[in-house]
Amino acid sequence: MTVAKDKAAACHPPAAGHLCMPEDSRKRAARRLKIARGHLDSIVAMLEKDDAYCVDVLRQLKAVQGALSGAGEVVLRGHLEAHVATASTRGDSVEIVEELMEALKYT
Amino acid sequence: MTVAKDKAAACHPPAAGHLCMPEDSRKRAARRLKIARGHLDSIVAMLEKDDAYCVDVLRQLKAVQGALSGAGEVVLRGHLEAHVATASTRGDSVEIVEELMEALKYT
Amino acid sequence: MTVAKDKAAACHPPAAGHLCMPEDSRKRAARRLKIARGHLDSIVAMLEKDDAYCVDVLRQLKAVQGALSGAGEVVLRGHLEAHVATASTRGDSVEIVEELMEALKYT
Amino acid sequence: MTVAKDKAAACHPPAAGHLCMPEDSRKRAARRLKIARGHLDSIVAMLEKDDAYCVDVLRQLKAVQGALSGAGEVVLRGHLEAHVATASTRGDSVEIVEELMEALKYT
Repeated sequence: MTVAKDKAAACHPPAAGHLCMPEDSRKRAARRLKIARGHLDSIVAMLEKDDAYCVDVLRQLKAVQGALSGAGEVVLRGHLEAHVATASTRGDSVEIVEELMEALKYT
Repeated sequence: MTVAKDKAAACHPPAAGHLCMPEDSRKRAARRLKIARGHLDSIVAMLEKDDAYCVDVLRQLKAVQGALSGAGEVVLRGHLEAHVATASTRGDSVEIVEELMEALKYT
Repeated sequence: MTVAKDKAAACHPPAAGHLCMPEDSRKRAARRLKIARGHLDSIVAMLEKDDAYCVDVLRQLKAVQGALSGAGEVVLRGHLEAHVATASTRGDSVEIVEELMEALKYT
Repeated sequence: MTVAKDKAAACHPPAAGHLCMPEDSRKRAARRLKIARGHLDSIVAMLEKDDAYCVDVLRQLKAVQGALSGAGEVVLRGHLEAHVATASTRGDSVEIVEELMEALKYT
């Protein structure tokens, strides 16, 4: 947990060796999240009408959850490629794996 | 699938016997989704900064997914109580269960 | 929680009105679980060889989890049809829904 | 997919550079799976009695699924530490990440 915080902090100055999300993952994840957000807005609008039907709402929620999972996959892939696959070179394999396992656990 | 559509449609006129989401579920689910939406906004903002860290984003995504699951639980509970538990009285048990199983499948 | 226990207990004597799993669900779920069990045996055997590869094991585990989910779907569908859809007739809608929501939560 | 097969195959002879599951993960995962298997057996036995109750079965299934997830976590952690964290040194980061993302997808 502190690992992530330190690393995020270490990103601010343009120093070498810090861990920042690859730009491509960042852009792609943001794009997907904006779509998910629009979808979420439409569910909120749906819930404002008194003829909303439960199963329709459940289906829309599943679709948004699928979109968030898709964004999560983009982020995870970028992390594995840019930060985990290079861990033994940096010498922080144990910490980086621990941190990731912890983050994946909250499913 | 058509079951839900028909039922949602059947809600519009103030006719008796149609299936509409209980108001309490509707309000509570909407409230939770608005919170999730704010959270999603903050992740999009996070991804706009070039010092975003993958694992922080993964954690925030998990939190939003948890919030959506919570909203889904509210909707499911309302549906079970208001529509599934009363199905044998209405005589549409098979259809309503089929429809729900279908909607739950997209996990 | 106590609801389930009481109900299961209420099944033993051939009294009327108790809630027992529909025979068809029971047979079908058992069949699927036996297949999953065989699959699990083969993963255990795989892990006994020192050339096991992590990703192969992960894939096999996912397959078994899919089989268990399939069995769970059979059980859930039977429960919804036989016990939840008839709840308002019996007059225990609140308890039966509460119990089910609780059981589904442990995902 | 072929990556895993090749790698598993490459493990048989005591050659250097191949990817085999760390012994510790292998032992720990096997231990957990044996416990899950015992648990699964008891659910099958439960389903053989005609007084089985759906929600009890659902709860037991969730417990077994939790045990399989636990075994999966052990395997994933071992894989990340032993094989993914060292990928850039071996020069197969892209393939190893692709393979893992593919295997994780079947959730």
